[in-house]
Amino acid sequence: MILRYDRLGLEIPPGDPDPAGARGVRELMGGRFGEMSTLMNYTFQSFNFRGKQSARPFYDLIANIAAEEYGHIELVAATINTMLTDASAVADGAPDDALSGYKDKVKNPAHFIAGGQGALPQDSRGMPWTGDYVFSSGDLVEDLTHNFFLETGARNNKLKVYEMVTHPAARALTGYLLVRGGVHQVAYARAVEHLTGADLTKLFPTPRIPTDKIPECQPHIERGVHRILYRFSPSDYQEIVAVFNGPHPETGEELVVEQGPPEGALPNDLPPQPAVFAPDYAPEEIQQIAQKLREQAGLPKEPTGEVAESDGLLETLTSKTRS
Amino acid sequence: MILRYDRLGLEIPPGDPDPAGARGVRELMGGRFGEMSTLMNYTFQSFNFRGKQSARPFYDLIANIAAEEYGHIELVAATINTMLTDASAVADGAPDDALSGYKDKVKNPAHFIAGGQGALPQDSRGMPWTGDYVFSSGDLVEDLTHNFFLETGARNNKLKVYEMVTHPAARALTGYLLVRGGVHQVAYARAVEHLTGADLTKLFPTPRIPTDKIPECQPHIERGVHRILYRFSPSDYQEIVAVFNGPHPETGEELVVEQGPPEGALPNDLPPQPAVFAPDYAPEEIQQIAQKLREQAGLPKEPTGEVAESDGLLETLTSKTRS
Amino acid sequence: MILRYDRLGLEIPPGDPDPAGARGVRELMGGRFGEMSTLMNYTFQSFNFRGKQSARPFYDLIANIAAEEYGHIELVAATINTMLTDASAVADGAPDDALSGYKDKVKNPAHFIAGGQGALPQDSRGMPWTGDYVFSSGDLVEDLTHNFFLETGARNNKLKVYEMVTHPAARALTGYLLVRGGVHQVAYARAVEHLTGADLTKLFPTPRIPTDKIPECQPHIERGVHRILYRFSPSDYQEIVAVFNGPHPETGEELVVEQGPPEGALPNDLPPQPAVFAPDYAPEEIQQIAQKLREQAGLPKEPTGEVAESDGLLETLTSKTRS
Amino acid sequence: MILRYDRLGLEIPPGDPDPAGARGVRELMGGRFGEMSTLMNYTFQSFNFRGKQSARPFYDLIANIAAEEYGHIELVAATINTMLTDASAVADGAPDDALSGYKDKVKNPAHFIAGGQGALPQDSRGMPWTGDYVFSSGDLVEDLTHNFFLETGARNNKLKVYEMVTHPAARALTGYLLVRGGVHQVAYARAVEHLTGADLTKLFPTPRIPTDKIPECQPHIERGVHRILYRFSPSDYQEIVAVFNGPHPETGEELVVEQGPPEGALPNDLPPQPAVFAPDYAPEEIQQIAQKLREQAGLPKEPTGEVAESDGLLETLTSKTRS
Amino acid sequence: MILRYDRLGLEIPPGDPDPAGARGVRELMGGRFGEMSTLMNYTFQSFNFRGKQSARPFYDLIANIAAEEYGHIELVAATINTMLTDASAVADGAPDDALSGYKDKVKNPAHFIAGGQGALPQDSRGMPWTGDYVFSSGDLVEDLTHNFFLETGARNNKLKVYEMVTHPAARALTGYLLVRGGVHQVAYARAVEHLTGADLTKLFPTPRIPTDKIPECQPHIERGVHRILYRFSPSDYQEIVAVFNGPHPETGEELVVEQGPPEGALPNDLPPQPAVFAPDYAPEEIQQIAQKLREQAGLPKEPTGEVAESDGLLETLTSKTRS
Amino acid sequence: MILRYDRLGLEIPPGDPDPAGARGVRELMGGRFGEMSTLMNYTFQSFNFRGKQSARPFYDLIANIAAEEYGHIELVAATINTMLTDASAVADGAPDDALSGYKDKVKNPAHFIAGGQGALPQDSRGMPWTGDYVFSSGDLVEDLTHNFFLETGARNNKLKVYEMVTHPAARALTGYLLVRGGVHQVAYARAVEHLTGADLTKLFPTPRIPTDKIPECQPHIERGVHRILYRFSPSDYQEIVAVFNGPHPETGEELVVEQGPPEGALPNDLPPQPAVFAPDYAPEEIQQIAQKLREQAGLPKEPTGEVAESDGLLETLTSKTRS
Repeated sequence: MILRYDRLGLEIPPGDPDPAGARGVRELMGGRFGEMSTLMNYTFQSFNFRGKQSARPFYDLIANIAAEEYGHIELVAATINTMLTDASAVADGAPDDALSGYKDKVKNPAHFIAGGQGALPQDSRGMPWTGDYVFSSGDLVEDLTHNFFLETGARNNKLKVYEMVTHPAARALTGYLLVRGGVHQVAYARAVEHLTGADLTKLFPTPRIPTDKIPECQPHIERGVHRILYRFSPSDYQEIVAVFNGPHPETGEELVVEQGPPEGALPNDLPPQPAVFAPDYAPEEIQQIAQKLREQAGLPKEPTGEVAESDGLLETLTSKTRS
Repeated sequence: MILRYDRLGLEIPPGDPDPAGARGVRELMGGRFGEMSTLMNYTFQSFNFRGKQSARPFYDLIANIAAEEYGHIELVAATINTMLTDASAVADGAPDDALSGYKDKVKNPAHFIAGGQGALPQDSRGMPWTGDYVFSSGDLVEDLTHNFFLETGARNNKLKVYEMVTHPAARALTGYLLVRGGVHQVAYARAVEHLTGADLTKLFPTPRIPTDKIPECQPHIERGVHRILYRFSPSDYQEIVAVFNGPHPETGEELVVEQGPPEGALPNDLPPQPAVFAPDYAPEEIQQIAQKLREQAGLPKEPTGEVAESDGLLETLTSKTRS
Repeated sequence: MILRYDRLGLEIPPGDPDPAGARGVRELMGGRFGEMSTLMNYTFQSFNFRGKQSARPFYDLIANIAAEEYGHIELVAATINTMLTDASAVADGAPDDALSGYKDKVKNPAHFIAGGQGALPQDSRGMPWTGDYVFSSGDLVEDLTHNFFLETGARNNKLKVYEMVTHPAARALTGYLLVRGGVHQVAYARAVEHLTGADLTKLFPTPRIPTDKIPECQPHIERGVHRILYRFSPSDYQEIVAVFNGPHPETGEELVVEQGPPEGALPNDLPPQPAVFAPDYAPEEIQQIAQKLREQAGLPKEPTGEVAESDGLLETLTSKTRS
Repeated sequence: MILRYDRLGLEIPPGDPDPAGARGVRELMGGRFGEMSTLMNYTFQSFNFRGKQSARPFYDLIANIAAEEYGHIELVAATINTMLTDASAVADGAPDDALSGYKDKVKNPAHFIAGGQGALPQDSRGMPWTGDYVFSSGDLVEDLTHNFFLETGARNNKLKVYEMVTHPAARALTGYLLVRGGVHQVAYARAVEHLTGADLTKLFPTPRIPTDKIPECQPHIERGVHRILYRFSPSDYQEIVAVFNGPHPETGEELVVEQGPPEGALPNDLPPQPAVFAPDYAPEEIQQIAQKLREQAGLPKEPTGEVAESDGLLETLTSKTRS
Repeated sequence: MILRYDRLGLEIPPGDPDPAGARGVRELMGGRFGEMSTLMNYTFQSFNFRGKQSARPFYDLIANIAAEEYGHIELVAATINTMLTDASAVADGAPDDALSGYKDKVKNPAHFIAGGQGALPQDSRGMPWTGDYVFSSGDLVEDLTHNFFLETGARNNKLKVYEMVTHPAARALTGYLLVRGGVHQVAYARAVEHLTGADLTKLFPTPRIPTDKIPECQPHIERGVHRILYRFSPSDYQEIVAVFNGPHPETGEELVVEQGPPEGALPNDLPPQPAVFAPDYAPEEIQQIAQKLREQAGLPKEPTGEVAESDGLLETLTSKTRS
Repeated sequence: MILRYDRLGLEIPPGDPDPAGARGVRELMGGRFGEMSTLMNYTFQSFNFRGKQSARPFYDLIANIAAEEYGHIELVAATINTMLTDASAVADGAPDDALSGYKDKVKNPAHFIAGGQGALPQDSRGMPWTGDYVFSSGDLVEDLTHNFFLETGARNNKLKVYEMVTHPAARALTGYLLVRGGVHQVAYARAVEHLTGADLTKLFPTPRIPTDKIPECQPHIERGVHRILYRFSPSDYQEIVAVFNGPHPETGEELVVEQGPPEGALPNDLPPQPAVFAPDYAPEEIQQIAQKLREQAGLPKEPTGEVAESDGLLETLTSKTRS
């Protein structure tokens, strides 16, 4: 089971609407090497792990990284949502005007038609993520070899999306994912080495771009995030320390296990997009109903959930001149 | 982000190997109405929710049910793994004998070839779960209408898998999922009613089989599990109480929110299946390496992770007469 | 636009439940060369036809055959439904007993889980029919060449399903479709010949099995059905006579256009299958509601729609001993 | 069986070539919520309906709406074909010149390469419609719940395509489909209400945009088209009156059944597009052959089929300066 | 088995980077009628051929054309690679600058993200080639009928890509493939005629554009390439002469079998693309390692493999100003 | 370009018909880790290789292994065809009897309906091989890492098919492919080591079953086939010696390059299967036509192509008692 809470691993900065860029970022969501793939590969491998007790450190490693990956699909989604915010126009509420702003965005219709200016589990072609991307052979060495390869392909794709998309949200995302994916790449390399003696760490960095040359990676490296494996559990996965240890392949610093998740950041409360009816063509009505239900339930006057900018929405809803 | 821990919502009872039954259960994993679909639909809808603060009770509802669904794919995987345990033969370690037991199981090869006697995100046809099963329009009423329909289709499929597969693990699973899915069906019906006034609760039960007539549902109903919405978060999603309230459509009892997850059960530590190299053709070697790594890391002699039957594995590995 | 009415091109005889046979028949529904493919290929080609007036006889031919194909997916569905009728057991209404009869049918779960013992647009592998099976290049000669090839592949598949499945419904279906498909094969061959001079009729029969040697084809051949092109329109497609003429390639008889559809047969009213909730777990309730609604609308006491055996259902619903 | 005839439900107005817009409209053809989906869902549900006589009003409703949907895929195809007309250039017949006009349209190649400037059963991503979009559980209440949801999703997609594409053909199409889809949405809501008592009509309009505010919907609403269910059969489906009755959820007017299809409009005879060989690189040759065949068959000198503008084509073929 | 060697059937001329054009050319690689399809259809038909000795001329024909098609996927790949060369920018080696050139190419991300500026087995939509494009019924007449149709569809697609894409590499490719595909179209037409008497050669040219009017086809026609079937085997497939004979349908010249492959051209050695790490972010390192390994293996100082312009690469690697 | 010739890498022994076993073997053809995947991955990587001259030994390695893989899909197809031979019945030529033998084989219909008792590029689920299985990033180290992983997954699948299917053809195939795949696994491990220093050979054998314990591998190991890389080219790929050298990871023997392909074996001429019209319902007619064409072309009286048992077919065709 999981406990979920609304903290993002990273603060996603705003920027101008960028639907074309969001299309590229989708590869990191639903592509063969996207975060859905890392999440689901490790999740199913942990579900299918046989002989957990006798190989506990390896089980704990896979299960724990799987838990972190959930936070990564969350981050990619937050990035796409940010980049699509205000990509449609709303003028004065009369239907014909409100609905006329899209014409030149037709080249990427799925984000608007099926997605409601939101994220979907699709790749940059618009093709859906598929369960056939999950590799879970049960053979521990083979699964770990796969995972190392998967993280390598993921690093390749993150680097290319970094190159393609310069929107600040995308750059912040890729900078962070490159660092965190690098940690997982190291973790699986170490696991293979412990089991077989093969020194996969000699492959680092792969692709051969030094991570610390990428500006958006540098603040994370300075904070040591590149050598920390967080433990995403209230109680379990304590044996990851038995695998994740030794020197970092790129910097030589000692690898570290941190007993808990990163602090993270509060998510932004992205504003409604009435042109795609998200959450409604007239979101004020939903707001009023919600307020009434909250009162009936004896909840406090202000929403109990925390977001980064709690005033943003109300402001948005009263001003009708967003373009 | 999430915190993950190794408790199952339900204890999965053992039984004879049943690969054909496991094939049917796969529909509940990777089918259009399986648990991957409920998990990912609600997860993406929560990621894409716009105007969270102004519609907090509805956001909390969707985000919180998404969290519970993670535990459901975990349960389906545990059931499939249980049903596939010992479906292959291992005799005395000589390769030719060890590898000769499958012949008549060829009709369902994917569980053995790609899956290593484990679960994969596929449906009962063997077709992969696909991201196109995710509906996330951003329109709140529409997404909730969809979710009610999705839970209805899921209930239909659970009932049919119940009918098809009598393995005790499958019956325990479907009995539990019918009750929990029923809670979600109610939750989405109430949400639609709060927003529009449409009384979807008149559709219950749908399909029209009274849940309490199904023997494997009865113990859960007796414990009130059919009217409890658990809060799967250390801190968030507190406003679910504003939506999940009123009488249960089938029993008339009051709906209840519980401030935390169910207690759950420790998972079984399923034994290695050397014929498919899970976790290895010679799992003892991995055990020895793991033990050495644990010692080097200063971990206690016994594994720190808890499982239901901690002695099972060692016993299995020393006795070579499992058929 | 179309007008639809409840007559089948052929009477589908009953027989014992045969889920395995129904799986084979599905190839004729949703396979690359199944009736969904012939229907949709000709339908889209007729939609996309440019310069209709200047090439009217060819447009009329394609549009008219498309109309007949609708009746063919209807026939394949009726066959599959017939073969699946009573493949599940219902005993005395108590849930556990009522739901326990499937165990050994798991090898073909989709017909029961997703399909409710009914037909779906899938092939014999369980894979869905896909729009990529539609070929509509706009080039008339090329589309006709394709159509001739498509009918040839369809004939091959019908012959093999005939060989595989001996259920009387399947045999009646394939016997009829072989004859009607043969007419379409001739029609497209003639069209190509008219446009290019290439004598495709020399390819008949292809595959090289004389149609008249197949017992289930003989009654249709005796009635001349193998050389008649029916006009499926109240007013249009009159110029098919300009293409469909000359001698039949196998028999030498003159090809004939009939100004209207075949007489056809009333469909059977297949009984409910409560174990899969079709149309409900307790179909009597629906019957009562329907009856009340009919009365309120001033409809006659007996249903206005005609079926082959109008007493079948009531009888079924009162007797509970069907196995 | 069906009878088909060449009348469109709506006159599709011409406009400038708009391949990018046509790409968006494709979602209404082959998307999950497009007209192929509504057509095939209701068609298969009607094929698989068990106990027709005892639940006749509901069977008639589904079967009859299925018949109308055929006319809707026809309309979407006519719209796409109109928008693609003259999107390629033809100059003076010399191959190199005739074939040089596409360069900047490569971003949407499928409409030209596979489609011959015509419609295909694909969505706006270019992915094919798939049979897995068909839901036919056999459970009547569940199928109707699905159908209501399907029409809701379809309305969402029509609204967004309306917003995206301002080509007059697309606007006319979406205006009409919004009104007709609204009728089907009401019909299924009423059916569910009759069977269960749940008042789904409180969900209207969903999405929450009043239909009568959309200019292209207004003429249809003025003519009452929003509250009429046409009976698309020479003889059958007379019991739809037992379900489709009561007040319209948005306007309060009485729902009405009309005993026959709408009058409709003659289709345009869209001109050849020689650059994609539709119907040929030299369409005059086909015209001459067709004319000769017509004479040999004793047909009148003028084509028997009616089109909206019968002179258009000849004019086009003699003038070679279309760009 | 095969022997492979590095000669292309055609010299591929360079040109400016053209990613949009490369997208169109992909249809000829991975589309339903692309070269992957011709290659794999004939390859599997030859694998599955039963009764080879008694039908040797037909087996030899299919097996031999399959061998030529391998060279065609090679040509399409070389064309795509040529068109993508230098489509990304590399400046002075500092990561941030080196990685900033893509922004406006996001509309076609797959060639860069998954493909590394190279060819993949995908069509112009970005959808993968699928094994379901292979038709291999075993019925010789039917397989040959299919092959004739397949070559016809392939000719259609080549003509349209010719029209769309004017890059010199694409024009050279399509000009050549039109001529070679034409030979295969004739070969299959003759095979069908020999077996059945049906004169398919009357369908030529199909589509109805005279091949010799296309400038890029003319040099090949002048050299007689349009009437030569090459034998791609050191020893086998000698009986193709028994099928490939008689007059060419378009020119009336005698068809000819040549006892060996065409001479072909040396491939270009396309330069590295460091921005996508092909073959590396710092390709000089790989060059040095390769050189050392060559020396250790006693190979000559210069590479043993021949390419068209052997100096190109080194020059490229020392100059850093390519844009 | 390639030269093709009719020698198999291995003699495929006959055995009883085994359609269920053939279904399992299909995984080695069209599965994610099947021979289509190894063939196409290395083929596209060699097509897309940039900077060939400066990294020649690595290019030669990939291009050369790609050439060998062609022979492997040939072997898998020959195995499947062998296992399906005589799986259908033919009695005395009268259609009804000839066509009645399939009934109980319906569970695996695709091999008979679409395949004509032959091989198709599908996996053991019946799902087609897809181009999305091709990984070709252009990054040399990454592509080689992938290839090592791909061969590891392929070895896993070969071992499991070995375990599942005991038909002599399948056992001979898997025994041989395990040895040859092992050579490729070593080759890619060495390539990675040369480029990075990472000692992947420590992972051998992976899965951890010693290859020499498998009886069907032993004769190949005794002949040294496990340490030989054949050069499949008349002239090229000579620099593979620079990579493929050093000791074999399992045996310590020196790795060897052989300047040419293995000798191989003549293929069997598998008999016609008239029930599926392969190559015809009446294959004698084709034989007569072929003989006449051969005479007209001046070919020798006996077929020029060599097969393993040249008398088999004629014998078969005259005796009609095969069951």
